Amino acid sequence: MANSRSGDSMTDRIVRVLDTFTTERTMQTATEIAERTGLPASTAHRIVGDLVTAGLLERDEDHRIRLGMHLWELALRGSSALRLRQAALPHMEHVQSLIREHTQLAVLEQEEALFLERLSHPDAGANITRIAGRLPVHASSSGLVLLAHADPSIRARVLDGPLRAVARETVTDATTLRAMLASIRRRGYVIAPGSIEAVSTGVAVPVRDRGEVVAALSVVLPRDAATEPAVTALMDAAKGIEADLRAMR
Amino acid sequence: MANSRSGDSMTDRIVRVLDTFTTERTMQTATEIAERTGLPASTAHRIVGDLVTAGLLERDEDHRIRLGMHLWELALRGSSALRLRQAALPHMEHVQSLIREHTQLAVLEQEEALFLERLSHPDAGANITRIAGRLPVHASSSGLVLLAHADPSIRARVLDGPLRAVARETVTDATTLRAMLASIRRRGYVIAPGSIEAVSTGVAVPVRDRGEVVAALSVVLPRDAATEPAVTALMDAAKGIEADLRAMR
Repeated sequence: MANSRSGDSMTDRIVRVLDTFTTERTMQTATEIAERTGLPASTAHRIVGDLVTAGLLERDEDHRIRLGMHLWELALRGSSALRLRQAALPHMEHVQSLIREHTQLAVLEQEEALFLERLSHPDAGANITRIAGRLPVHASSSGLVLLAHADPSIRARVLDGPLRAVARETVTDATTLRAMLASIRRRGYVIAPGSIEAVSTGVAVPVRDRGEVVAALSVVLPRDAATEPAVTALMDAAKGIEADLRAMR
Repeated sequence: MANSRSGDSMTDRIVRVLDTFTTERTMQTATEIAERTGLPASTAHRIVGDLVTAGLLERDEDHRIRLGMHLWELALRGSSALRLRQAALPHMEHVQSLIREHTQLAVLEQEEALFLERLSHPDAGANITRIAGRLPVHASSSGLVLLAHADPSIRARVLDGPLRAVARETVTDATTLRAMLASIRRRGYVIAPGSIEAVSTGVAVPVRDRGEVVAALSVVLPRDAATEPAVTALMDAAKGIEADLRAMR
């Protein structure tokens, strides 16, 4: 993919422009985008202009740039995220009606837990996850389930790397984590109190498609809530999602 | 955005590659993609390779290409689609619990109704819309609401253009449509029996943000179902979404 002149392809540069948008930074000027990409200003401005023309970015009356509806449309057409989410949503709604906190669906993406969907009760407790947001695999309950079932090479890379403490109780010792992952594979679920926020407990189970774990289904409970109803609801929902994924083939 | 050598920018070519994916065609070989874009095979193959490296496309064991999870992630980060959909989903679920058919959210995009979300009851009747799918604005109930409140120049362009009959009962006469659009603006909803499929009736209402109509909320009912409960449920839900959009500012 290297480009003889600059060492990166045009595709990379376009992705660098799109990557300057985050769940917290949804509006930027073209100049801010140029600075954040590190690309020459003229290159960045030209790419922004092309992306606006193509509908992947939108420019408002104040010349601020945001992600465009056509990017959303392209991304959802026939994506595996949409298929998973379509299979999962009715079952997530059922979990939500029973547990009435936060119900979430995550996949493993570049060694992090990427959240595809989140349903939240109006009175639910704290929860920092966002749709299309990410959390470290060694800290979030969804991430731990995904890591437990990941390719061994990915698991080794994560456990050998720096393990950041997201909260005071995040487990950052590789040996302890290895034992937790083995226990997740054996028991079929994880309960992770305080690993993301002191006030909450994550509970997660794996979701399989064609025998492989493709997602983690989780709830975020207040720290002192009973976890048994959540484990049961999540395991039932995972079975339902797996049946629907089979029916979609 | 013109490129001196080829008349289209690299961004255009990348969008042409991504645009070969549809809700019905989610897997393609690189050769099929090249043929469908009309680009030289070597150019198309190089772009596909770059997009796979960047995570915007994914290649499976059988060398088939699909849309990548990173494209989905980029698209949803801080997009206006996500904000609208987040505000709307709880209210759509409430409509769904009352009406138990199909509940949908659409926006106007390039003179078509683009569907951002759809909830469906397991026993609901026929419905051809899909998430990230489109329908003509002059035929679908959502489209009619969006067209009624669109910029007059867009309305003129649609009404002057060819008006395709999606079903036998689709209204394709510009004068009749103009009267329907005026009635939608006056009454605040539309009931469109048979305009998309003979067996169903669409009911839609506008959703406003900062005084502008930004979306249409709709249900698809079996042709003979009562429409009054749907109109009431949709109007209440639109009010709720509008309040939540205000609170999100």
